[in-house]
Order: sequence, then C-alpha cells, then structure tokens
Amino acid sequence: VARERVVRSALIAIDWGTTTARAYWLDPAGRSLAQTSAPLGVQQVGAGGFPAALRTLLGDAAADAPVIACGMIGSRQGWIEAAYCACPADLATIAAALTPVPGTRVAIVPGLLCHDADGVPDVLRGEETQILGTLEGAPVAPRLIVLPGTHSKWARCGAGGIEAFATFMTGELYALLRTHSMLGRLATDGNAFDSAAFARGVRTSLRAGAALSHDLFSARSLALTGALAPEGVADYLSGLLLGAEVAAARDWARRDGVEGETVTLVGDAALCERYRQALALAGFAVASGPPDAAARGMWRIARQAGMLAA
Amino acid sequence: VARERVVRSALIAIDWGTTTARAYWLDPAGRSLAQTSAPLGVQQVGAGGFPAALRTLLGDAAADAPVIACGMIGSRQGWIEAAYCACPADLATIAAALTPVPGTRVAIVPGLLCHDADGVPDVLRGEETQILGTLEGAPVAPRLIVLPGTHSKWARCGAGGIEAFATFMTGELYALLRTHSMLGRLATDGNAFDSAAFARGVRTSLRAGAALSHDLFSARSLALTGALAPEGVADYLSGLLLGAEVAAARDWARRDGVEGETVTLVGDAALCERYRQALALAGFAVASGPPDAAARGMWRIARQAGMLAA
Repeated sequence: VARERVVRSALIAIDWGTTTARAYWLDPAGRSLAQTSAPLGVQQVGAGGFPAALRTLLGDAAADAPVIACGMIGSRQGWIEAAYCACPADLATIAAALTPVPGTRVAIVPGLLCHDADGVPDVLRGEETQILGTLEGAPVAPRLIVLPGTHSKWARCGAGGIEAFATFMTGELYALLRTHSMLGRLATDGNAFDSAAFARGVRTSLRAGAALSHDLFSARSLALTGALAPEGVADYLSGLLLGAEVAAARDWARRDGVEGETVTLVGDAALCERYRQALALAGFAVASGPPDAAARGMWRIARQAGMLAA
Repeated sequence: VARERVVRSALIAIDWGTTTARAYWLDPAGRSLAQTSAPLGVQQVGAGGFPAALRTLLGDAAADAPVIACGMIGSRQGWIEAAYCACPADLATIAAALTPVPGTRVAIVPGLLCHDADGVPDVLRGEETQILGTLEGAPVAPRLIVLPGTHSKWARCGAGGIEAFATFMTGELYALLRTHSMLGRLATDGNAFDSAAFARGVRTSLRAGAALSHDLFSARSLALTGALAPEGVADYLSGLLLGAEVAAARDWARRDGVEGETVTLVGDAALCERYRQALALAGFAVASGPPDAAARGMWRIARQAGMLAA
C-alpha cells in the first residue's frame, strides 16, 4: 500500500483474527482508501510479536492515524486482553470498553459475553464489530444477523443493540467430519456443489425429532445402500449440519419472540450462499449484509469513542 | 488355547469386528469352554487374508466344529458380504439368512437394515447378534437395548424380534472432538472420571431446546469464563454427547409408543457405567445385559440354523 494513498486516512482499522490480519485505511467518512492483509494471525504471531507484526502489516503506509483492531487480537492469546462486554451491548457500551495497548496508538475492541436462561455463557470476539457495521445505514435495522464461519454466530438485535447471540460449531464439525471421520472416508470430491444432496441434508435436519448425532450416520447408511452417491456425501453432510443449525437457531429466536424476521447474512460469499439455501428451506427470508462490515463497524466504534484523526 | 480343552466344542463363534477378532469355543449347551482374541480385525486383514487370519486366530485349537462369525467380517470390506436383513427380524429370519463362505465350514451372520418413517435407512452389523444374545434367557424380554460404542445402537424389541433401531455417532464424535478440535485443546487430562462435569454436560443436553452444535461450544465458553476447570472439559463433552443421544433416543422410542421401559445396557463396563448415569438423569431405569452377549447370540443363531456339531 503506497504511502501517498493513505496520508488522508483518519483511522486504520484492523480485523485481526486467528490466522489473518486485514488492515483498512479509512477516510474521515469511513470510506476505504486502501487495504491489505497478511498471514499474521494471533496463532502465527504469538506473545511479544505483535508490535513487529503491526509494522510488517502496515509497512510504509503506517501513517499517523490512530489504529483500532478487533478479533482474537483482544483474546488471552492476543496482544492484550480486552475483557468481554456483557449483552445487551450497544455502540456506546462497546466504544466505552475499548482497551488501549499501553505505549501505542492502538485500541482493541472487546468481545461480547451473554448467558442463556439457565446461565450457560456464550462468547464472541470480532463478530460484535461486524454486527455494528451491519446495523449501520440499513433503512430498517436487522433483527437477526447470521455470521457463518468455523463457529457461526446468530445475533438478535433490537433497541438495546446486540441483545443476545448463540454460537454453532457448524464449520468446525464439518471440517472434523470431512477430514477425520468414517463419513469423510466415504466422500469423494465432486466437481461442483451438489445442491440436491445439500438440500436433502438440510431437509433431514429440519424434520421434527431430528438429532444430529443420529442423522449424521445416515450419510453412511444412504451411501451403503446406494441411495447417495459418494460425490454427494460431503454436501449432504454440510446440509445436515447447516440444517441442524438453522432449526435450532429458529427455535432459539422464537423463544425470545422473534419469528418471521428476515435474516441478514454477513461473511464469505460462497458460504453465505449455502446458508441462504438452508435458510430458505427453513422458511426464512434472507438479506445480505455489507461486504466490509468489519471496517464499517470499527469506524463507527472509533467515531463514537472520539478516536478519529482530525 | 489348548486343543484338549476344546475337543468337545459344538461351535466356534467369532465376533469379528473392524479392529479385533474374538473367538469362543462353545459346548453343545452354549457354555464357553475357552476364548481368545487377536488384532486381526477386518481393517488389519483385508481382502484375501481371511483364511490365514482364521488359522492364526484358532491355532492348534481349530477343532472340527463349525464356525459362525458376526460383525464387519460380513461387510463389503470383509471375507464375504452377508446382505442386510430387513427389520423387523427375529431369530428365525436371521438364522435363515446366514451366509456360508464357499469351501469353508464358516457361516456369517447378516447385519440389519431398517428405515424410518421418511424412508431414511439405518444399518448395523454385529449388534444384531448381541441383541439376540441379550433377549435370550431374560425372565421378561427387554424392549429397549442399548449398545454403547463408536456408533452406539438403540434397539426396540418386541413380538417381531428386533423391530427397529437407531444409530448415534456419539463415540466417534467424542474422539474427533477430543483429538482434533478446539475443544480438545482446552481439555487437560484429569486423574479420574469427573462425574460432576459429566452430569452437568448431560443435563445441558437434556434441556428443552438443546442443540448439540450449539451446546458443544459451551465447553469453551464455560472454560473461558472460569466456570469449568480444564480437567473437567473432557467429561463435560462426554456428558453433552451422551445426553444428546439419550434425549433423542427417548423421543425416538416415544414416537413408537415405547415409554417408561427399562433400558438394558450391553457392552464395555466403563462405557456402560457412563450410559447408566446419563440414562438415570433422563429418568430411565437401567439393567445390565449378559457379559457374553455376542457368543450367546451366535450360539442361538447356529442352533436355530441346525449348525451345531452333534
């Protein structure tokens, strides 16, 4: 990133996760002037290495702007721990809880913590920023936002900001099953996404009385009996897992009186397309969030906190 | 096994699975005269190697008795494929479907196939024999039999024999999560079974609205917030998985009108003890099946088929 392109930046916003760090140079109105990314995630860098990683990431374009970062950089394994904010949490709450890294111009966005009716906790870190970026600017603020991923997050939003959320280990379970399980060994790679096999998996998990640890085995039974081609096994599994997530999250939202709401999807395009299909099969209307939700969210938080350069 | 101990055997019964083969020499009344086992499972031996593996397993004690075998030895990867019998299936149906291995004195027990109300298939192989061994001799034949394992099986029995069954991938999911997942990395080995952490996991999965792919993440949230010790994570996970199985299987049995029945557990003692605790938390009464259910089942099948040596 050339220095001359970013001299006018009012903020450098870094989405700093487990494997990757992505930096955005933003003008005073939050528009992106430039961006860059590098495999300098928290897992790669480790304790003590973050100042050097930041210099590497920003290079000659470090500019003098303040830096805001979100994601695993604020975890116990990150640069400095930014303690979780309790839900419900809105923009003001989160901005007030920004954690400065001593001796630097970097401030880190806190993650969120919520508890269900039985007191069981749930946590997220990084997604709070994407959610705030998605809530901004929409004509009607979305009530249900879904962020697919290794650990996908469903957030319920309202007058109180981010009111509650729930995590589903869908992506990690898929990777485990595909890579290490008996079911993964039955699967052969197809040439393309098998949407029929995927939809069949989704429908199986949407049935009344569905149970994931039972239904997963149907990938084997169907393959053994010739009712599912080996090329379809992986997408059938993916459908079972996304269907189980959507069915459970629908119940979760209903328990809080949220029903018939449009779901706004934020994240990787191919993954969001799978979720769109699964959500449609479950009767949800679906909208797409902004492509740069993390940068927008960080800009909103920084502005709220009075961090923007003059 | 010494030859002199087994000359009177009327049957050699082999429980021949994926990793292990276990042989029993049985007298004409089905009592065990001797037994042996070896790591000569189907996965170790492979195509063409089964005659030699049988000689290795039986050694000098091969005797002249007929041989019956059950388990993965009858799968497509085994010695010869013994096609699945459709459920409901009773002793006579299964005995009539014994598959002889040409040119040998070996006959293989078929597995079972059933379909749920939507036509989704389920399969088992080996457990049919343990179930038949468990049904024999009990004053009141059990209606619900559970065989814990990598893929645990719930069987519903009645006048028609084995009427239906359902598989749960509980054991395989636990191994995947413990060995390869983010949750496994949070766990440290404790010195002993943490029954409180286990029961907490079971209760979480027994809640109304429980959803496995969400609840699994609570192992991380609880550990992160200091509410679950690292030594308890593995048993909490085990509890979540067994609780999810028991909750789903309870619904499965209820859909067929089976409720309030005692569950009979068959299998490894330590694993059955975990199931006993999970089942008790779900309100089930629990009984133990016979320790040698596979050998008893094979003896019943062989007798029914007229295979026993005079």
